[in-house]
Amino acid sequence: MRGVLSAGLIGLVALSASAAPVFAQNSERYDIPAETRQTAQGLSQTALESDLALDIVTSLTTEVGPRLAGTPQEARAREWGVAKLRELGFENVRVEEFPLDLWTRGHSIYEEVAITAPFPQPLYAISLGGAAATPEAGLEAEVVFYANFDDFEQDAATNVRGKLVFINDRMVASRTGAGYGPANRKRRMGWVIAEDRGAAGVLIRSVGTDTNRFAHTGMVSFPDDRRPNVPILAVSAPDADLIERIAERGETMKIKLKTYAGWRGEVTSGNVIGEIVGREHPEEIVVIGGHLDSWDNGTGALDDGAGVAITMAAAKLIGDLPHHPRRTIRVVLFGAEEVGLVGARAYAIARMADGTVRDHVLGSESDFGAREIWQFSTKVNEAALPAMDAIGRELAVLGILRGDNDSGGGPDMIPLDYMGVPMASLAQNGEDYFDFHHTPNDTVDKIVPEEMAQNVAAWAMMTYLAAELDVDWRQPMEGEQAQPSQ
Amino acid sequence: MRGVLSAGLIGLVALSASAAPVFAQNSERYDIPAETRQTAQGLSQTALESDLALDIVTSLTTEVGPRLAGTPQEARAREWGVAKLRELGFENVRVEEFPLDLWTRGHSIYEEVAITAPFPQPLYAISLGGAAATPEAGLEAEVVFYANFDDFEQDAATNVRGKLVFINDRMVASRTGAGYGPANRKRRMGWVIAEDRGAAGVLIRSVGTDTNRFAHTGMVSFPDDRRPNVPILAVSAPDADLIERIAERGETMKIKLKTYAGWRGEVTSGNVIGEIVGREHPEEIVVIGGHLDSWDNGTGALDDGAGVAITMAAAKLIGDLPHHPRRTIRVVLFGAEEVGLVGARAYAIARMADGTVRDHVLGSESDFGAREIWQFSTKVNEAALPAMDAIGRELAVLGILRGDNDSGGGPDMIPLDYMGVPMASLAQNGEDYFDFHHTPNDTVDKIVPEEMAQNVAAWAMMTYLAAELDVDWRQPMEGEQAQPSQ
Repeated sequence: MRGVLSAGLIGLVALSASAAPVFAQNSERYDIPAETRQTAQGLSQTALESDLALDIVTSLTTEVGPRLAGTPQEARAREWGVAKLRELGFENVRVEEFPLDLWTRGHSIYEEVAITAPFPQPLYAISLGGAAATPEAGLEAEVVFYANFDDFEQDAATNVRGKLVFINDRMVASRTGAGYGPANRKRRMGWVIAEDRGAAGVLIRSVGTDTNRFAHTGMVSFPDDRRPNVPILAVSAPDADLIERIAERGETMKIKLKTYAGWRGEVTSGNVIGEIVGREHPEEIVVIGGHLDSWDNGTGALDDGAGVAITMAAAKLIGDLPHHPRRTIRVVLFGAEEVGLVGARAYAIARMADGTVRDHVLGSESDFGAREIWQFSTKVNEAALPAMDAIGRELAVLGILRGDNDSGGGPDMIPLDYMGVPMASLAQNGEDYFDFHHTPNDTVDKIVPEEMAQNVAAWAMMTYLAAELDVDWRQPMEGEQAQPSQ
Repeated sequence: MRGVLSAGLIGLVALSASAAPVFAQNSERYDIPAETRQTAQGLSQTALESDLALDIVTSLTTEVGPRLAGTPQEARAREWGVAKLRELGFENVRVEEFPLDLWTRGHSIYEEVAITAPFPQPLYAISLGGAAATPEAGLEAEVVFYANFDDFEQDAATNVRGKLVFINDRMVASRTGAGYGPANRKRRMGWVIAEDRGAAGVLIRSVGTDTNRFAHTGMVSFPDDRRPNVPILAVSAPDADLIERIAERGETMKIKLKTYAGWRGEVTSGNVIGEIVGREHPEEIVVIGGHLDSWDNGTGALDDGAGVAITMAAAKLIGDLPHHPRRTIRVVLFGAEEVGLVGARAYAIARMADGTVRDHVLGSESDFGAREIWQFSTKVNEAALPAMDAIGRELAVLGILRGDNDSGGGPDMIPLDYMGVPMASLAQNGEDYFDFHHTPNDTVDKIVPEEMAQNVAAWAMMTYLAAELDVDWRQPMEGEQAQPSQ
């Protein structure tokens, strides 16, 4: 209702202010000044011809590699981030530290898991983030097989006490990655139900869309800050198929595992920040970025070295312009995203503390790999929509469709989104993202240079225009009225 | 020269015996009797509609899984083979044991390898078969990078004493797998040169055509029965890229490894044999098969569960005919192929001992995965070529081209080929075989059921016709003259 009402109000205001009283839906057309358009198009062209983002992600994955939140490797990644931002000419480069409860695998990226009955053979499996270790001598137990999470949730009758619960949901691949949420329930919540029923541990088919013999790791959920006391592991898709085949034969199946995972106490993580300072309103901030941490089994090239590299490269190209845009572009390389958006929360809390939340005029994160961008979505006040549509028209030459005005902006934007900061998102083709996500296979060779360059072009145009156009993207404060596009 | 001469002789003989004196090159057309053709075509049709081969390879990889030569797992595979052959109605099912020097990884399928300088991060790597272990505390040494095997072989000047040699040859993918031999030189012989130069160990880019983060294992060579005293490992392609990138920066690179590989003394391996006994000439043998052993890191689905399954299924379908073919079809599931064709040699030696080498009228192995067959090659006496061409015409309906008359018959046929046994081969499309070969990713889900069924159809037709047609495929004995096709 509020949306409809304010749209009505905006329409009225817009009418009186409009030079060309042509209405498209609730709002008139906004035209980007010719010189600004030219600059944006020049940025796009430069980006398409540049290897900068590929160089950045190659540097990160070569010189740092895996960088689990809270580990010395993540600290090395922060040092890398500071040095790289300075090297690229960013201003106000700094680290904002925050405390983090450290979880690690404890031993190595190789975990020993095997079927011991009826057909002994090794499995490729990996502990999920937050899981507990097995007893020191390992754990061998009978397997209770569930075809999917719903079956498991609803089956309170079967006695799983002292047994290993296996949940076999399959994930559907798609451009949007929409299958991730449903398939991820078993990863996030399976252990809670299993532990409540006295299970000795939980195994799941990896949340992923590939058929490679890699297990996909990822964090479990901690409802009411509860932490697991049992081992929780993902097994590779071919191994899940094997377990399924054995289960179908109805014979007693046993699995043995030996894991060392656990919580290691409080350590330091941090967000790395750099800015292209605005020429007119340096206090107004367009915040973009990716997350710097990665899982320990891959090298975090797609997740999320790509997002780090794309947004750094886009901002650097904007910084190279003869004139900075009106507002400040702030690149944030978030720490500790994988383990629960810890860096994103710390960033938002720090902005509440320094009173600058409202200065964030737009936020957007790249955290979905490096395939081509196909859609541009926003969440801005309705009066500003025509200007965002105009940005959308510029992005169209890169093959990007205009999406809706309900964008979340990306995982690390969730806290800012919640606080009312306007959002934008440039959605990448995610049809094979979950082939590589959270596996050893997340390496830089999986990035297609031309597709990554298209990403940088889109980010450079969108970020530049969002920071340059004299339009307020924000929702009006209580008591204010939205300002129309100018 | 001998070929040309005998072709001339055969031409003369063929002329006098021929009912239809039409010459194609040196020989007349051979027509398969109509009823026999019908039977062959019926077999093909049955095979195309059958899941038998897929069921067999699924059974092997599920109930046994990896089965390294000489291990208890390979012994379980022999038990499986005996039971499966009996279940399928084969006769004379038996195991022929032979002694084997056992090599194992010693610890687990996960080996600890990491770059320690300048950019510490773990690598996905695996010991090659025959390699020695590191010292108990592990081995850390500087890396000397070579772009390819030739560079390494020719560079006697560089001091590699106490260092780790890395060789980075890339393999070319193709339908025929022709790139394997050249790329494999570094795997087979790299250690010999490195050890002679005092190197502490050898690392190679995996011999394979994929970009997955799996290392490809495989046996090294043992010239003059010499065995390695140094660790020898393959690293995954993305990790080899990483090593290459670091090497290009010119900084000192160090790698640390800890491996447990080594020789464990003499054990027992064996070949499993089953027969479809011939109705007229039971003593004459068409020998087909695959190898039963596999590498320890995968499940040996493509290499060579597929070959075992395809040839067993083809022979079983022939055995189900109302009348067995004239000659015996012998299916041999060879042991210990991967570690040096030990089962194949044992089989050939046993046949020399029992005087039945000459009774082998044709040999052929399936050991190149389960993609569609595209070519039929032979090595038979020239008088028998028209009959093989006729078999080729039957195979053409499956999309199979007629190849030359210089087939080797497959790895486990090498000793029999050497002894003059006629050979045939049904070449599979190998363009992605080396994506999976000798990796954890060699699992049954990689097999396309329809392609495997085409394999069985081709093998059933070829094997049936080779055993049924009244044509002698063998080279004439000294003093004999080749018999023309009838």
